[in-house]
Amino acid sequence: MADRRALDALRSLVAEREWAQFHTPESLSKSICIEAGELLECFQWNPHGDLADAADELADVLTYCYLLADLLNQDPEALILKKLETTRVKYPLDRARGRSNRYDQL
Amino acid sequence: MADRRALDALRSLVAEREWAQFHTPESLSKSICIEAGELLECFQWNPHGDLADAADELADVLTYCYLLADLLNQDPEALILKKLETTRVKYPLDRARGRSNRYDQL
Amino acid sequence: MADRRALDALRSLVAEREWAQFHTPESLSKSICIEAGELLECFQWNPHGDLADAADELADVLTYCYLLADLLNQDPEALILKKLETTRVKYPLDRARGRSNRYDQL
Amino acid sequence: MADRRALDALRSLVAEREWAQFHTPESLSKSICIEAGELLECFQWNPHGDLADAADELADVLTYCYLLADLLNQDPEALILKKLETTRVKYPLDRARGRSNRYDQL
Repeated sequence: MADRRALDALRSLVAEREWAQFHTPESLSKSICIEAGELLECFQWNPHGDLADAADELADVLTYCYLLADLLNQDPEALILKKLETTRVKYPLDRARGRSNRYDQL
Repeated sequence: MADRRALDALRSLVAEREWAQFHTPESLSKSICIEAGELLECFQWNPHGDLADAADELADVLTYCYLLADLLNQDPEALILKKLETTRVKYPLDRARGRSNRYDQL
Repeated sequence: MADRRALDALRSLVAEREWAQFHTPESLSKSICIEAGELLECFQWNPHGDLADAADELADVLTYCYLLADLLNQDPEALILKKLETTRVKYPLDRARGRSNRYDQL
Repeated sequence: MADRRALDALRSLVAEREWAQFHTPESLSKSICIEAGELLECFQWNPHGDLADAADELADVLTYCYLLADLLNQDPEALILKKLETTRVKYPLDRARGRSNRYDQL
């Protein structure tokens, strides 16, 4: 389970500014998409990009991901751990090792 | 700081499958964008969407975000907390309360 | 087939600025994603958004789509017409009429 | 101006299936983002990707772009040509030639 500090701080920020009225699963998903595009912009013309800028944009994506997880009553790290189990099964070691293929093309 | 379990489990998965060779800041940023699109698809024609599907897609976005944070030597929750401080300054309480405007339009 | 004016004008712009060196199918696909995120931003907190802004961002998405089509030796409108035929088959009138479901859920 | 065949064919498809009820500027912008992510997926782990797949996904992005342009009462190629004029001004030849920098970093 993620520790509570980031989540508590996010909840305070949102509560103080009365922003919860704007946060729906849909609007937060749109926001994640928008910020993911800004992250990708760091690498638009250069595969190496500016990594400090990238960390800064990643922070925005993560922020909206945490807010959406909270709205869905999910712990972010529990979501990751649960999905990991699915990935282990879909990508068995003997077939997936050293390959970037999708599970249905292994 | 995020607890170590999700990160440790992700690192094991990646190491066992020898996937680190495919993980660059750019390829993980592309992956975040791709998965963000799949999350948005839950709400393509319906603003209410299917929230169980959304949680499942959010898990994928979060997974790539954690992998990118790790590659950039950043703690995901430290990134969120740091960005929160910037947001507090850009969106002062007295002007941002109850408004969804961008900071440059407050 | 799309008329030639937009394409010719794009080619001149790119040639004069010697930008073709930056245009690969991958970099243009990243650019389409980035601009699509900016288009979505017009509707981030408001489903009605600002339609003049949206038209402006749509122009950017379309510009990169045309550049990518050209790089792939495809005519943009021929691509649309060909995909339409696939859609007609995947979404038969009697099952798809008045429904927003995906073809595999009709 | 784009020729009418692609637009007319799209309009017929939408009318026959009674899909106009689902098409708002917001839902079409979401759709463009979703399809842009699928296009990017062709290059997720390989900068060279599969170009036939890419053309197929580009067709989906273009289709939604045309539908959105139509909903906004805009001609797709007129949008491109108008944006081109803005680009010419923001990226003057003498400063932009051979450089991929953004206009505010030239």
